[in-house]
Amino acid sequence: MGHSTDEELETREMDVRSLSSSQRQAPYVHKVGVPPKQNLFKEFKNTVKETFFADDPLRPFKDQPRSRKFILGMQAIFPILEWGRNYSLAKFRGDLISGLTIASLCIPQDIGYAKLANLVPQYGLYSSFIPPLVYAFMGSSRDIAIGPIAEASLLLGTLLQNEIDHVTHKAEYLRLAFTATFFAGIIQATLGILRLGFLIDFLSYAAFVGFIGGVAITIALQQLKGFLGIKNKNFTKKTDIISVMHSVAKSAHHGWNWQTIVIGVAFLSFLLVAKCIGKKNRKLFWVPAIAPLISVIISTFFVYITHAEKEGVEIVRHIEKGINPSSVRKIHFSGENLAKGFRIGVVAGMISMMEAVAIGRTFASMKGYQLDGNKEMVALGAMNVVGSMTSCYVATASSSRSALNYRAGCQTAVSNIVMSCVVFLTLEFITPLFMYTPNAVLAAIIISAVIGSIDFQAAVLIWKIDKFDFIACMGALLGVIFASVEIGLLIAVSISFAKILFQATRPCTAILGKIPRTTVYRNIQQYPEATKVPGILIVRVDSAIYFSNSNYIKERILRWLTDEEEVTKASYITNIQFLIVEMSPVTDIDTSGIHAFEELYRSLQKRDVQLVLANPGPVVMDKLHTSNFASLIGEDKFFLTVADAVGACCPKLVEEA
Amino acid sequence: MGHSTDEELETREMDVRSLSSSQRQAPYVHKVGVPPKQNLFKEFKNTVKETFFADDPLRPFKDQPRSRKFILGMQAIFPILEWGRNYSLAKFRGDLISGLTIASLCIPQDIGYAKLANLVPQYGLYSSFIPPLVYAFMGSSRDIAIGPIAEASLLLGTLLQNEIDHVTHKAEYLRLAFTATFFAGIIQATLGILRLGFLIDFLSYAAFVGFIGGVAITIALQQLKGFLGIKNKNFTKKTDIISVMHSVAKSAHHGWNWQTIVIGVAFLSFLLVAKCIGKKNRKLFWVPAIAPLISVIISTFFVYITHAEKEGVEIVRHIEKGINPSSVRKIHFSGENLAKGFRIGVVAGMISMMEAVAIGRTFASMKGYQLDGNKEMVALGAMNVVGSMTSCYVATASSSRSALNYRAGCQTAVSNIVMSCVVFLTLEFITPLFMYTPNAVLAAIIISAVIGSIDFQAAVLIWKIDKFDFIACMGALLGVIFASVEIGLLIAVSISFAKILFQATRPCTAILGKIPRTTVYRNIQQYPEATKVPGILIVRVDSAIYFSNSNYIKERILRWLTDEEEVTKASYITNIQFLIVEMSPVTDIDTSGIHAFEELYRSLQKRDVQLVLANPGPVVMDKLHTSNFASLIGEDKFFLTVADAVGACCPKLVEEA
Repeated sequence: MGHSTDEELETREMDVRSLSSSQRQAPYVHKVGVPPKQNLFKEFKNTVKETFFADDPLRPFKDQPRSRKFILGMQAIFPILEWGRNYSLAKFRGDLISGLTIASLCIPQDIGYAKLANLVPQYGLYSSFIPPLVYAFMGSSRDIAIGPIAEASLLLGTLLQNEIDHVTHKAEYLRLAFTATFFAGIIQATLGILRLGFLIDFLSYAAFVGFIGGVAITIALQQLKGFLGIKNKNFTKKTDIISVMHSVAKSAHHGWNWQTIVIGVAFLSFLLVAKCIGKKNRKLFWVPAIAPLISVIISTFFVYITHAEKEGVEIVRHIEKGINPSSVRKIHFSGENLAKGFRIGVVAGMISMMEAVAIGRTFASMKGYQLDGNKEMVALGAMNVVGSMTSCYVATASSSRSALNYRAGCQTAVSNIVMSCVVFLTLEFITPLFMYTPNAVLAAIIISAVIGSIDFQAAVLIWKIDKFDFIACMGALLGVIFASVEIGLLIAVSISFAKILFQATRPCTAILGKIPRTTVYRNIQQYPEATKVPGILIVRVDSAIYFSNSNYIKERILRWLTDEEEVTKASYITNIQFLIVEMSPVTDIDTSGIHAFEELYRSLQKRDVQLVLANPGPVVMDKLHTSNFASLIGEDKFFLTVADAVGACCPKLVEEA
Repeated sequence: MGHSTDEELETREMDVRSLSSSQRQAPYVHKVGVPPKQNLFKEFKNTVKETFFADDPLRPFKDQPRSRKFILGMQAIFPILEWGRNYSLAKFRGDLISGLTIASLCIPQDIGYAKLANLVPQYGLYSSFIPPLVYAFMGSSRDIAIGPIAEASLLLGTLLQNEIDHVTHKAEYLRLAFTATFFAGIIQATLGILRLGFLIDFLSYAAFVGFIGGVAITIALQQLKGFLGIKNKNFTKKTDIISVMHSVAKSAHHGWNWQTIVIGVAFLSFLLVAKCIGKKNRKLFWVPAIAPLISVIISTFFVYITHAEKEGVEIVRHIEKGINPSSVRKIHFSGENLAKGFRIGVVAGMISMMEAVAIGRTFASMKGYQLDGNKEMVALGAMNVVGSMTSCYVATASSSRSALNYRAGCQTAVSNIVMSCVVFLTLEFITPLFMYTPNAVLAAIIISAVIGSIDFQAAVLIWKIDKFDFIACMGALLGVIFASVEIGLLIAVSISFAKILFQATRPCTAILGKIPRTTVYRNIQQYPEATKVPGILIVRVDSAIYFSNSNYIKERILRWLTDEEEVTKASYITNIQFLIVEMSPVTDIDTSGIHAFEELYRSLQKRDVQLVLANPGPVVMDKLHTSNFASLIGEDKFFLTVADAVGACCPKLVEEA
């Protein structure tokens, strides 16, 4: 702040005079409104409504006859009944093309992703057959493409492997996978039905970017085994970078398989080039979409004619023909494995739900329609519950395939049905042909797919916008890479929470000054031209006042006052006689907050400073009255605006300077 | 809102015209300030300072010579060096009287409280001898009285009993008690030194009131055993009301001891009457203060001459003579008991610290001096560490004795020294006389002491002010009474956190209207006279926009818009063409928030509504620029005030009505 010059002093005093005179000209001062007392039930109802029904899902049901309500209810559960009625051939053309496009991408991806979950390839294809069909009937997003995704597959695989080894206890592992999928679906549907969808908002975007990036890198590292043709059976089962690199280095002695490396590098290059082409020219979106399938076909054919599998090139070897068998009896509904499956299901379900809702919302806002997050969760949940009974593992919206779906011109969820039909045909007729597909090509497909989910640009933007967010992002990323997927997730959630708590403990406060030629008071740090009013200190508190910050706010205000008094003493200008607290941003105050204000009032009395409040909100006003704080400091100390408050204080200022 | 009449319509349009014309008269519109870019280090430094050094403890050290800094440093650690220099005989008179008063109260209380912690009586007295002395040198509160308190004693006793039985493993139990006390001190001092004192603010006042009330009721119930003279060895060790009442009822068969009951009831009545007298006439504060000691003396004498102990009246029997023996070697510095002691110490240390800081702050604000919470914690910690080495258990500030201290006219911490001296004399010379003190009197003293800490008035006020706070209060209370002290504490902390998170997820938003004859825009719910401007929707967001609420805020704003558009459609008034978001209370925005605003902007574009922002703060303005959102919506869409924004929008309104 520094010392005021004489000139500044003059302007300030002029301001005071002009203000107080203008006040005299306009004796009409508006009172601060005290809202009518709400009854308890109404208050409670409003809170519940804003918390759980913020999007007002029952609005269309209002004032409708019963039969119409039933139809609306059915349409709410099965949106296909609503949009299906306006479905047209023109729309089907878009859906057919986009459905075929995403099918061509999903088939090779599914086979690879199943391996991430430590499952045999057909389970990936199964999960792209039934769940998209269920979603098409129940989901309300028009753009997302359903199926297994790399992140959820790796997460599920890691968590399951922690409990049961997939090599030695294959059947038990599979049962636990279905159990986890079942509970993932149950938790998704339950959260949706209970309208607790807002819980997923507690993982911040930044932490999510970091988490996904970390998982992508981990997945890419995992592929090194298939990519280099490492046959070492002692290859680590851990996912952290140090263990993996150590295993890779150790197996160099046993010899990597050069044929495998050649196949891997060749097709990875091909896929990356295709990706670049798709990015450069948005019309050629189909190039990267069919590149994986072409890679699979060419490499399979190549292995088949050269019998490269005899040279040590690992191939898929066996893949079951036919559609999903039932798996109802494989789900554990009791015993110890129920608890394990439940725990794994909750984590995998939450993460995959988060991804799906985020993707759904992005495309909804791009096309300009609203998406009810809770309804989406019910659809995702139903789809996973049905999936768990038909030999599928956790499915959700894939970001890469959804983007492709959108670019290929999808119109409705029918594109998912088209994709599902293609997968059905594949399962029925073509799967045996994948026998000779080399694992290295699958590894290349996975690597090229996950590289896209490392979002450098987002990380750079996060760094620029919010350093704390960047810490959350990097914490999650490094946690996943150097420890494990669960640790990374834990770090991401903890940092997100820490941020909320930090904000709740140390809210902003600002000193306000008058902006010249207006009656507007603003933060003097943001508006250097704003001048303080001599004898009056104006502080704005920028947060609801709760137990977690009430004491800080009280002490912060007293410190502003001490700082200011030192300046006034040093520069011989009017002593501070009024403290105006601008309460506009203070939406709520609790008992601790009122205590703090009482203590503030008492401290100010000892220092001969009067406490004045400007523009307290309805809730705060109500509570200040109920607690008798309003009558303690005097009903005449409340003003509609800071300008009114300053106007009322100025004539009372005892001139001392 | 409802439908507008024609009259309303007219006034609104008039407002528009007058506004836009006034805008034309005053073409000078202030720009929204963009603060100069801070460098990263400075930003970081400021955040750290506000978080850990909010009270600026190093201020007096600034610009001082080195020798002076040393003296100031010593005074900071030992405040007695500062206030001791101005100590006078007049002050000593106050301290002597208050010291003697609290001593007379503390001696009988200490003997009883030690039993709550399952320790023999002398440990209570030990804890009132050494810790007050240490505090007198290091503490900065002038009013608090140090010693064992009922709540911490019960908490410690319960937690220790969970680990080791105090009857069968007496020596081990004692060792663990000292270990816990040691770590309670260490955690207190550490939090203070690391300036993490704000952590105690995370337990809300309401939850604390409930917790203390619940503990008081639990303690009173526990006294039933001594009060009724129940000798049943199978009396429950649990503290919940159901177990205790069950044990009491069961032991009714074995016979309660009527002599004990007579003694208990008689003295409890005496104590309660004394309390009433003290409350009615504030000058007679010494009546309730000495009543416990008088009760002890009379009852002891009575038992001694009647040999009531032979009739089944339980007495203290044995109490060690002499001052505190050393207990350094009893503290576990390694092994399994270290971990147990640490865990118990953390809980007991946090709770007792919370109590002490709250009491210290209350009296400081009543006398008008500042108290540094972190410095207090260091003093409390040092006192408990020293205590743990001299056979004391956790000591802290007692609210009843501190209030008495204050009323008796204490001036400085010398009153604690006086009390300590009296306790010293008691330990050296009088303890054997307590042999015949009946346990029923001790129970009566404890009951009458803890009844005072059930704060009905506070609970009523909490109910009136904040229903959510009341839930926290009752949750903690019922948790302690019906489950256990730990469960109650867990409930209290969880509800407190839930409240912060709730606030962070569902912030308030409000529709603003223009208050007649001003250029002020306020919440139309609080000010029913405020009128909306046709064609413009003004929404205020009352919170920083973070990942946890960004999606809600976006959807809430869109819902306001939908509501408003329905009204305008129904009443044929101007369509909404501008959405002004009043950003004054928005102190910060993160990447998720900016994403949400981008989505909001896109949705608004589809609906032909323009997005305008009023008064974004410095941090928000900076981030909106960095993320290019500002250039996306247009630099001309930012205004200093809502009035400016409305003024700029109005001339552009395409008249449709």
